[in-house]
Amino acid sequence: MAVGAGSRFPLDPVAGIRLGTACAGIRKPGRRDLVVLELAQGSCVAGSFTRNAFCAAPVTLARQYLEQAPCSVRYLLINTGNANAGTGARGLADARLCCAELARHAGVDARSVLPFSTGVIGEPLPTGPLIDGIPAALAALDENSWQAAAEGIMTTDTRPKGASRRVVCDGHQLTLSGIAKGAGMIRPDMATMLAFVATDARIPASVLDQMLARAVADSFNCITVDGDTSTNDACMLIATGRSEAPGFDDIDDPRVPALSAALRDLCIELAQGIIRDAEGATKFVTVQVGGGHDEAECRRVAYAVAESPLVKTALFASDPNWGRILAAVGRAGVAALDVMRVVIRLNGTVIARDGARDPEYTEESGQQLMAGEEIVIGIELGRGRAGAQIWTSDLSHDYVRINAEYRS
Amino acid sequence: MAVGAGSRFPLDPVAGIRLGTACAGIRKPGRRDLVVLELAQGSCVAGSFTRNAFCAAPVTLARQYLEQAPCSVRYLLINTGNANAGTGARGLADARLCCAELARHAGVDARSVLPFSTGVIGEPLPTGPLIDGIPAALAALDENSWQAAAEGIMTTDTRPKGASRRVVCDGHQLTLSGIAKGAGMIRPDMATMLAFVATDARIPASVLDQMLARAVADSFNCITVDGDTSTNDACMLIATGRSEAPGFDDIDDPRVPALSAALRDLCIELAQGIIRDAEGATKFVTVQVGGGHDEAECRRVAYAVAESPLVKTALFASDPNWGRILAAVGRAGVAALDVMRVVIRLNGTVIARDGARDPEYTEESGQQLMAGEEIVIGIELGRGRAGAQIWTSDLSHDYVRINAEYRS
Repeated sequence: MAVGAGSRFPLDPVAGIRLGTACAGIRKPGRRDLVVLELAQGSCVAGSFTRNAFCAAPVTLARQYLEQAPCSVRYLLINTGNANAGTGARGLADARLCCAELARHAGVDARSVLPFSTGVIGEPLPTGPLIDGIPAALAALDENSWQAAAEGIMTTDTRPKGASRRVVCDGHQLTLSGIAKGAGMIRPDMATMLAFVATDARIPASVLDQMLARAVADSFNCITVDGDTSTNDACMLIATGRSEAPGFDDIDDPRVPALSAALRDLCIELAQGIIRDAEGATKFVTVQVGGGHDEAECRRVAYAVAESPLVKTALFASDPNWGRILAAVGRAGVAALDVMRVVIRLNGTVIARDGARDPEYTEESGQQLMAGEEIVIGIELGRGRAGAQIWTSDLSHDYVRINAEYRS
Repeated sequence: MAVGAGSRFPLDPVAGIRLGTACAGIRKPGRRDLVVLELAQGSCVAGSFTRNAFCAAPVTLARQYLEQAPCSVRYLLINTGNANAGTGARGLADARLCCAELARHAGVDARSVLPFSTGVIGEPLPTGPLIDGIPAALAALDENSWQAAAEGIMTTDTRPKGASRRVVCDGHQLTLSGIAKGAGMIRPDMATMLAFVATDARIPASVLDQMLARAVADSFNCITVDGDTSTNDACMLIATGRSEAPGFDDIDDPRVPALSAALRDLCIELAQGIIRDAEGATKFVTVQVGGGHDEAECRRVAYAVAESPLVKTALFASDPNWGRILAAVGRAGVAALDVMRVVIRLNGTVIARDGARDPEYTEESGQQLMAGEEIVIGIELGRGRAGAQIWTSDLSHDYVRINAEYRS
């Protein structure tokens, strides 16, 4: 049911990163549900986590370890099948235990292992199978296993999501590769449900933090499937420093713009990959809002449209029901909106202006515009110069089926 | 597909109100789609309208006429099949024309006719059939036609909604009767999609306004189906003054509390009737939030839960998936929420506390709680004394089918 082409594998390996997976039987037997990322010594890590107040135990722990020592992280331990969220004090103890077990096997400090979980909320983490699976995942560590890792973090995803970029800075080639998962409970707030990006550049933690924050703002924080911000969102950016390029000193390093652009581009590809594979998706929809007073009101309008069940079901039906778009714009809480100046476009064609249907618009042309898999809804507010853009999916029978059947 | 028992008809007639309907063929032939309410001379009217910036032409006009002369209204002209919304300047002219035609037939001033429309957005109002249907609706005027009127304002509703109350004030019996429609595009903001309530009490416009505002706040403004505030919401309260009870002088009249309580009660019954008949509904869900700092944050939490597609699909599946409730509470934007103090109940049974599943809760008991048609989700925030309560429905296959097929 995914929309458009999937990710191109294999990804480019990143010097200093090895990945290993195992079938630990955390929820279902025979499923690749355990992933370990090994980071070369001296790597720096930046993280962006959910703002959901009920954040999961692994989020609490990873955030805490990372704040204490962003350049001492040696392993990421990721499981699917169980989110270890809504598990209270026991959840924290379970996450700590699993990290300590991996650290023991690998001979590193327990606080150099960051935990990540995704899956059902509110069930205790099955630490037994998880811990039993760690040796196999460690034994499988390989710098070419990005695709296996992308598969190992999937839940209701129908396909693995990954992307690579190469950028030449001052004569040195730098590599960026990343993977992501997520198909439902998607409206990231500061990050999305599990994305891991690595580069071989040498970048101090403070610079890495800023680069990640900018990239996330333009990518994972611009998508929504159902408006439901997950308890487990996390996006990690790793810099191994294993390239031959000199290290980045600070955010004013002249190479930052090029590397940041590549990072942003890669994150957008991963974020769009999540929407293309959204639960039950039959359309990939871009909502572009322009002419606003500020970005905040443009984002409010974009989300009101993107999360309207009525707009989403119209998209599913390929119905050019612009009245529903207009109603969503009208309720988005834009103060003193002059509806006579609002212009609504479908794939660039004006369908509504002056508070009514455009005189040249016909139902037939609207149906043609909506027939494709990729739809751009353009909304011009006519009151300023700010804009915003987000990506979303439609609301189909399969979204209901998947979420009525799947226990997340 | 509606949940629970429907409204009890016939309603009590209200002295000074006559109702007439006709099949005007506005969108489909043979469907009762035109309703006229006649108000005795001297009636006062209060109105509460949508805050959607793209409010429909009839909303603009009705609000304007009402502000100018709330005690000169003689007719309400209501059509289904077309919302006359997103129709720009032409929509206003069309609405004015239809009001003028009714006024001409009835021999009253054009500004004493208030227009109301519901149906597809963005199509020009078919004024021809509408105007042709007016004489038949006027000829049918009868004080006992409340049920026919309730049927005449239906769109995707599966059954008519109406309620009556009688209250004795100072030895005089007063009557209240009202009808409402609405099944989708429901998250009223100041009023809901077409509700008409009348009493035979004699009440000046300023008092009527305050009574209506309070009743709407506790009823129509406490429901949501899909979070989509309609362009055409309107709730009208009419006082004909035809009872033998002395007129109400002001809001401090000692009879106001009793009449207001009856009005609030009636409006809640109509509002709940809308949710029970929500598009595709298989559950009637009450979300009660307590222990908040203020009512605003309680309402925010209640709506986050009630509008979460994941919570709504879990309700449809009768799945006691409290993790999704917890995730929705966590993303509702309550500052400094202490998740360890949050308690979540299903039908009164504690299912989650201390950030985790209640030790005594079992999956079996949860499934039993969720099996019924009427579900109460209780959320205690543990940080204050404020509370809020809203009513909502689930998200079913039929919601998607109805909205993918129906052009609203």
